[in-house]
Amino acid sequence: MSTMAAEVESLESILEEFIPTEKQKFVKHLLYGQELSSLDLPDEAKSLAQRQNFELKGYLFPAAPESTRAPRIVRIAGIQNKIVLPTTEPVLVQRDALFARISELINCAALCGVNVLCLQEVWTMPFAFCTREKLPWSEFAESALHGPTTKLLQELAIRHNMVIVSPILERDEERGDVLANTAVVISNTGQVLGKSRKNHIPRVGDFNESTYYMEGDTGHKVFQTQFGKIAVNICYGRHHPQNWMLYGVNGAEIVFNPSATVGALSEPLWPIEARNAAIANSYFTCAINRVGTEVFASEFTSGDGKPAHRDLGHFYGSSYVTAPDGSRTPGLSRTKDGIVIAEVDLNLCRQVKDKWGFRMTQRLELYAKELNEVLKQDWKPDVITE
Amino acid sequence: MSTMAAEVESLESILEEFIPTEKQKFVKHLLYGQELSSLDLPDEAKSLAQRQNFELKGYLFPAAPESTRAPRIVRIAGIQNKIVLPTTEPVLVQRDALFARISELINCAALCGVNVLCLQEVWTMPFAFCTREKLPWSEFAESALHGPTTKLLQELAIRHNMVIVSPILERDEERGDVLANTAVVISNTGQVLGKSRKNHIPRVGDFNESTYYMEGDTGHKVFQTQFGKIAVNICYGRHHPQNWMLYGVNGAEIVFNPSATVGALSEPLWPIEARNAAIANSYFTCAINRVGTEVFASEFTSGDGKPAHRDLGHFYGSSYVTAPDGSRTPGLSRTKDGIVIAEVDLNLCRQVKDKWGFRMTQRLELYAKELNEVLKQDWKPDVITE
Repeated sequence: MSTMAAEVESLESILEEFIPTEKQKFVKHLLYGQELSSLDLPDEAKSLAQRQNFELKGYLFPAAPESTRAPRIVRIAGIQNKIVLPTTEPVLVQRDALFARISELINCAALCGVNVLCLQEVWTMPFAFCTREKLPWSEFAESALHGPTTKLLQELAIRHNMVIVSPILERDEERGDVLANTAVVISNTGQVLGKSRKNHIPRVGDFNESTYYMEGDTGHKVFQTQFGKIAVNICYGRHHPQNWMLYGVNGAEIVFNPSATVGALSEPLWPIEARNAAIANSYFTCAINRVGTEVFASEFTSGDGKPAHRDLGHFYGSSYVTAPDGSRTPGLSRTKDGIVIAEVDLNLCRQVKDKWGFRMTQRLELYAKELNEVLKQDWKPDVITE
Repeated sequence: MSTMAAEVESLESILEEFIPTEKQKFVKHLLYGQELSSLDLPDEAKSLAQRQNFELKGYLFPAAPESTRAPRIVRIAGIQNKIVLPTTEPVLVQRDALFARISELINCAALCGVNVLCLQEVWTMPFAFCTREKLPWSEFAESALHGPTTKLLQELAIRHNMVIVSPILERDEERGDVLANTAVVISNTGQVLGKSRKNHIPRVGDFNESTYYMEGDTGHKVFQTQFGKIAVNICYGRHHPQNWMLYGVNGAEIVFNPSATVGALSEPLWPIEARNAAIANSYFTCAINRVGTEVFASEFTSGDGKPAHRDLGHFYGSSYVTAPDGSRTPGLSRTKDGIVIAEVDLNLCRQVKDKWGFRMTQRLELYAKELNEVLKQDWKPDVITE
């Protein structure tokens, strides 16, 4: 399945090709919710995307006008990309090539008026944790505050007046030189607002990340930016609804989910989880996946009885944005670099809270109480037997 | 949208009609996960379904063989149905007509070897809470232990050796005669195993249920039956991932979600939430929705500025089952009564837990701690500002 799937551009391209026009509306309503208009993006950006061979898509999520609040229109974006050079190139050469490529894509996003942008998980390197090799991969790690990636993006953030979320492999030099999977949040003023670490670490398939770093210790921070309250739920945290929930409890209006996941493992789950989180928590989500296949020099096994091999599988891209009312954009390509942009009115978050009442009816006291019980050593599950 | 949508049989019927065969496999993989075989159901059941004008669908969810456990194969089912008589008929006449119709459908499920079956939300009555009239609708309420519905289903449970989940409007005679939205779990031996109340009550659209009953006080009970550990998350509790989670924490292997929801409000959310819950909690879910349009004698308004009217909208059916690996069945019809049956190997729950590790990586201690903080009067959200 994964090989065939790798050749297909997207689910949406098939639906649009074969479903008759008069039924498109219904099918898209069921699959994607409220119909979205496309954003009118500048020609300069579109031709840049074409020249540099990446996809550029923009959508509009409107909200109703309010009497007491002005609209809070912001443009958010996610970038998905392949690595640029083979994984066998020197570390700094690989990283610099990614720096150059991503600077171009961020430039294009800036031409489109993007205010808040998120890159993919550990975007400065290949997703090499499948190899379980400590070297050279740990050499990609750097300081969240003072590393070269943060420096580059601080400059771009100021130049483009853009908040940039930069998921990196962090080297925490102040705390025993340990590694962490960390998103650095850089304000449009160029300041590092703070960092948010991956709370849930996978042990599935080739995702051997627990070999490299531990569960995040930064809780569920929300960053108040000039363009709304944002949070970052990294990759596997997507599978944990309680993780999404706590970002919402802290007031997030947009939660990015920078990820790296492959077809054979997770593709049918991909449209479900970040979208469910947007619905349950009345906020926007932007799920970003890598794209392409990354090949490594040394072979590795996957603990599945199959022969040793040199790649983790096809990262299927398909990045998308979901609104608090459950409407979502189509996915970006399964095969190409791309930028997905959504113009959103953040007022929609509270409007959906008022309509559906999910926050009001959340009963957090019930769940705190039950979880406190579960943690006791003498807890027994509440099971009724005949 | 809702009027047009009411005429369409299902999303799946459109996909099957128009997507070319060679692309069907890929599209279905992305939308439904692992490909499922159809169950071979007995001719007697199939002709019964045809004669009595309801849909009958069965699917097979396999699991891998294990060395230390035998397979635990059970057949689970959900029934979706229209009300039988107009809502203007006398209460007992309406109820008896539903008793007769549902007895037929349960008989058909028995012919198909169903072990555990769940009916739709407050199945003995129209979903009349839109009217905000206390009478005659509260007359449908009855004792969970000794009411006529429980008596009927106890007989059927024994006759068919079937566990039956019966969601009713409960009259709690021992606690001040209050009403509750309650699922009664009846063992295949005919015993009432217990009850599970709706934990989260909507205040959205015409769902004026908070006029009638309060948030459930039965927590997140799991019922150990001869055919697996089951739980019941009623309707709007579907929107609350923390609710799904606690049934999983208590060990549920199958969670039923008997519901009543209409197209204009929730149809794009319907395939997302119960499926997300199955994935996040490594259990089977069975989401059941009413079908058809129920018209009332007195008109009512919806608080949306639109004219008074006499129906809540079209209940779109589309009941479906999801496995812990995220694979799901197609939905039942959007317009007809039906039974969806899934033959499952309950061993799949633990197999998926071992594969994905969602339970192991759940970090409940983190969430208990954070929720305890949130409940304090002096709690402040964890927001970082520049």
